[in-house]
Amino acid sequence: MTERSPRPRRDDFVVWRRATTRWADDDVYGHMNNARYFELIDTAVNAYLGEASGVNIRTLPAIGVVAEVGCRYFSQMGYPQPVDMGLVVDRVGTSSVVYRIGLFQGDGDEACAEGKFVHVYVENRPETTSERPVRPLPDAIREAVVPLLRG
Amino acid sequence: MTERSPRPRRDDFVVWRRATTRWADDDVYGHMNNARYFELIDTAVNAYLGEASGVNIRTLPAIGVVAEVGCRYFSQMGYPQPVDMGLVVDRVGTSSVVYRIGLFQGDGDEACAEGKFVHVYVENRPETTSERPVRPLPDAIREAVVPLLRG
Amino acid sequence: MTERSPRPRRDDFVVWRRATTRWADDDVYGHMNNARYFELIDTAVNAYLGEASGVNIRTLPAIGVVAEVGCRYFSQMGYPQPVDMGLVVDRVGTSSVVYRIGLFQGDGDEACAEGKFVHVYVENRPETTSERPVRPLPDAIREAVVPLLRG
Amino acid sequence: MTERSPRPRRDDFVVWRRATTRWADDDVYGHMNNARYFELIDTAVNAYLGEASGVNIRTLPAIGVVAEVGCRYFSQMGYPQPVDMGLVVDRVGTSSVVYRIGLFQGDGDEACAEGKFVHVYVENRPETTSERPVRPLPDAIREAVVPLLRG
Repeated sequence: MTERSPRPRRDDFVVWRRATTRWADDDVYGHMNNARYFELIDTAVNAYLGEASGVNIRTLPAIGVVAEVGCRYFSQMGYPQPVDMGLVVDRVGTSSVVYRIGLFQGDGDEACAEGKFVHVYVENRPETTSERPVRPLPDAIREAVVPLLRG
Repeated sequence: MTERSPRPRRDDFVVWRRATTRWADDDVYGHMNNARYFELIDTAVNAYLGEASGVNIRTLPAIGVVAEVGCRYFSQMGYPQPVDMGLVVDRVGTSSVVYRIGLFQGDGDEACAEGKFVHVYVENRPETTSERPVRPLPDAIREAVVPLLRG
Repeated sequence: MTERSPRPRRDDFVVWRRATTRWADDDVYGHMNNARYFELIDTAVNAYLGEASGVNIRTLPAIGVVAEVGCRYFSQMGYPQPVDMGLVVDRVGTSSVVYRIGLFQGDGDEACAEGKFVHVYVENRPETTSERPVRPLPDAIREAVVPLLRG
Repeated sequence: MTERSPRPRRDDFVVWRRATTRWADDDVYGHMNNARYFELIDTAVNAYLGEASGVNIRTLPAIGVVAEVGCRYFSQMGYPQPVDMGLVVDRVGTSSVVYRIGLFQGDGDEACAEGKFVHVYVENRPETTSERPVRPLPDAIREAVVPLLRG
């Protein structure tokens, strides 16, 4: 996702999920606060992984920690309409997955916003102050994300 | 809502709304953080008012400000399942409305949590440091909430 | 905390904590959204317990789950000023603690809001769908909260 | 901010702000949820603008809307320690400002995370469904951000 890439359309995405919005999503300017988009993006990715893998992803030997995220905002969204989110995977590495997420509100074909979300997989160990070592993608995750790669 | 009132059931509520949950709703104990319930409760009330009144409630001459809220937690809820919220009105005053909101997750008949939410209506004036004077309920609000009173 | 109890003053509280506010705390009406107060209340209680007990409270044999909360709102607060929170304990039971939290912004002696927060202690076991059995307060918690009881 | 730029250090930033963390900032993995970083980043920028300009930035003829944000996560942060945020401006355009924000927790010299935040200035008009036209930076904003440019 560079600043020059075009505003995405519905056809750019592979699987879809709908989220409801909340009164508190809107800030003083009457539209969804920029941080709230990441609650939706995060949920789209994790909910897809849970459903497509059929397992509780919090209990796999490796868990995805967020290494980088970003969002470009094209037009305002906000409460009360729901948000439709399209997912596509740009890259599947040994230990990482790069997702792109289109956020749409209403019937328009152009995205209101586009998120980027990078998971790196690390050892699933109890909460600790030490860093967790990087691990390969669990098979259940790899099988879930490869179908989201665009031809 | 006193601490002695029984755990509510689906029949105790009049209108319903469904909200999706978010990954970030859950805190370190793996269940929805207590503050997040109020984002859902707030949304249930305001979304009902917007739909039942047919107007943008942010632009009425008086707006509802939250005077008191509360929540009793009976069993854990959390991501990823949606939450069904039932609404009932316990009291309609000259300038205030007292709502009760049942939160349900899954098929059970007993609420996972019960919220109380009290709106007091004040003059809708631009952001200011001075307090806004109390005003009677706008007619559109009164007509929306009276049908939620229980026999 | 009944609806008739008076608006609290600074003298009503025993220990204090300051929290910074965030741009996203304010909703479309230009003041802190009602749900956000509970993020501050929750933090005041848990941070006090962590500091006063000197242990990581997430790893004790019993953990406090939130059984009931409430908040009365007297005057608006919001970004950007910090919030001062006073804590007092109204009751220490075998397995529960009832806190009252005064929220102040600026120099006034009267609270902008008053929260109620009830912890019930349950067995600290891994995330599960089954309910966790109630347990007595850990000693470290009891020793931390008894000094917050008012004469 | 490209993925290849080095992990920033304290010396890379010009002005500083401290934020307290909240219990609800941490998600089920025991560390600050990725969306929450943007509540802190957003606040660092807006609070600096308010203080450095000496005006209520919500009432200027043009307001900054968020056009793009991003965050790279290097090491975990979370409740209960405060977060120190350093600000630097990478670019001041006719109608936009590009900020970089370093987030630090503890005494280390290397940032735990680095945010990018792009404001585009648009006409400050009441909430509406139509898009707001782009406007030049208000003088008060320009005078506040130019000193944050790095030699």
